[in-house]
Amino acid sequence: MDVELSRLLGGIVLGQTVAALATLHAGDPFASMIPYTTWLDAGGQRLRFVTHVSRLSAHTRDMLESPRVCLLITAPPDDVSAEIVPQALPRVSIPAVATFIDPRHPDHDPLARAYLGKFPHAADWFQLGDFSIVAFEPQSARFIAGFARALNVSVAQLSAAVETASA
Amino acid sequence: MDVELSRLLGGIVLGQTVAALATLHAGDPFASMIPYTTWLDAGGQRLRFVTHVSRLSAHTRDMLESPRVCLLITAPPDDVSAEIVPQALPRVSIPAVATFIDPRHPDHDPLARAYLGKFPHAADWFQLGDFSIVAFEPQSARFIAGFARALNVSVAQLSAAVETASA
Repeated sequence: MDVELSRLLGGIVLGQTVAALATLHAGDPFASMIPYTTWLDAGGQRLRFVTHVSRLSAHTRDMLESPRVCLLITAPPDDVSAEIVPQALPRVSIPAVATFIDPRHPDHDPLARAYLGKFPHAADWFQLGDFSIVAFEPQSARFIAGFARALNVSVAQLSAAVETASA
Repeated sequence: MDVELSRLLGGIVLGQTVAALATLHAGDPFASMIPYTTWLDAGGQRLRFVTHVSRLSAHTRDMLESPRVCLLITAPPDDVSAEIVPQALPRVSIPAVATFIDPRHPDHDPLARAYLGKFPHAADWFQLGDFSIVAFEPQSARFIAGFARALNVSVAQLSAAVETASA
């Protein structure tokens, strides 16, 4: 993946606040929306996506039953040329495994801080017992950079794109 | 569902050009993006969503193997108050069954016209053999109208919301 594409990918991932989340719901695919942020470990090697979910949500129950999910992050139309047709909107599909992070786990506080850094209004919900931090470990990525520009992206390439865009 | 919510729902469905599509991909959920339009039969009773897909797309192969999918349509942030937090964005999840419409089927031309009415630039792709019209028959809907405003919506209510918004 060349530098221009990597920059486009990193910008899309860092620039949005919500992703579509595909889960398995009683055997069928279900699509919902989640706010997300990204988290890179100290070495910048391990990228995870982070959300904060209520136990009451359908997608939370889905993920407890079946942690294999997929995120879709799409560039908004106003980020690109007004003449672009919707099919050409850059977007990335990221198959991932969801893990509920126990509040006592050492990763919990750094992940929660990353999430609250992007969504400070969510602080109140951290006081409620029925919310959990969920981390998504990407397994691969399919990047549609525009018309006829579909690329399979490795987790290492995705992490590097996000790290560069964060710098 | 009261009139205000029905109007909000119909406006979201008619106002967007793309949806997230959850499919089953080798047993795991996958999320991709599709352009869509809506189509109501002559009586205004039967609502279907319509897209036009290439046989080369991953989601096309997924739907050929497993027609049970889910659409997610989300109001864009600029449609709502700038102070709204992303979690409160109105959106609707629509589990649906995908059917590939044979070009000789009597529904094909009305569905294709509806699609081209919204996406006239797609006309060229109708000349290519590897594109298909796919119709999605909604099975139910989960409407998140904002914070703590989650509603299960019947297909009849969804159809009525779209019909009213189309009028």
